[in-house]
Amino acid sequence: MTTGATIDLASKFAAFSDHWRPRFAAQLNGQDLRLVKVQGLFPWHSHADAEEMFLVWRGVFRVEFRDRIETLHPGQFIVVPRGVEHRTGADEEAEVLIFEPSEVINTGDAEVSEFTAPQGQTI
Amino acid sequence: MTTGATIDLASKFAAFSDHWRPRFAAQLNGQDLRLVKVQGLFPWHSHADAEEMFLVWRGVFRVEFRDRIETLHPGQFIVVPRGVEHRTGADEEAEVLIFEPSEVINTGDAEVSEFTAPQGQTI
Repeated sequence: MTTGATIDLASKFAAFSDHWRPRFAAQLNGQDLRLVKVQGLFPWHSHADAEEMFLVWRGVFRVEFRDRIETLHPGQFIVVPRGVEHRTGADEEAEVLIFEPSEVINTGDAEVSEFTAPQGQTI
Repeated sequence: MTTGATIDLASKFAAFSDHWRPRFAAQLNGQDLRLVKVQGLFPWHSHADAEEMFLVWRGVFRVEFRDRIETLHPGQFIVVPRGVEHRTGADEEAEVLIFEPSEVINTGDAEVSEFTAPQGQTI
């Protein structure tokens, strides 16, 4: 990954197909831009030390909190406050941009599972 | 601005019309998501201590370096490395997302001018 070069989101998303495996698309100021394809339901978790931003690129994406569900369409985003339990989901495949600190593990405080993605997979 | 709520980029962009005046749309982990409408040409400048990411939402947006010009369309982004001189421009109005540390001044090391935006204008 180079900085200072133009990067095309559609091309990046076309380059992988697995779900719940964020790809590292850019790094800046200690933060990552990660791209993820999602379908199904992710485990409940929280991130004690980081806010997490989700911006929907394609499809319909849910961010579920214990007391409500936010349903996001392309061009909509949400910032999950630190320490707040949430899980994400999508009935059909959706493509989502994630902004968060580079050290964040996708499953947060949840037990390591098949959902826990390796860090730093570049696209 | 609340966190944990769904925010719609099109609605946010529809809420202002001036050029080169970034609006604060979200804050997370010491970083801002800012929304800006651009047309014309911005002064040369650099940011010694921050990378700056531009993601085009609508229109055609140029990031000019001293040795080349990158032309970005919707769904394309670029990370300007710290300390690298650049200027941005657009022949027709374009709408752009900016992701950078909250303390960054839009004109960087350039002299304060009519392009220098007030900090923290929320949308």
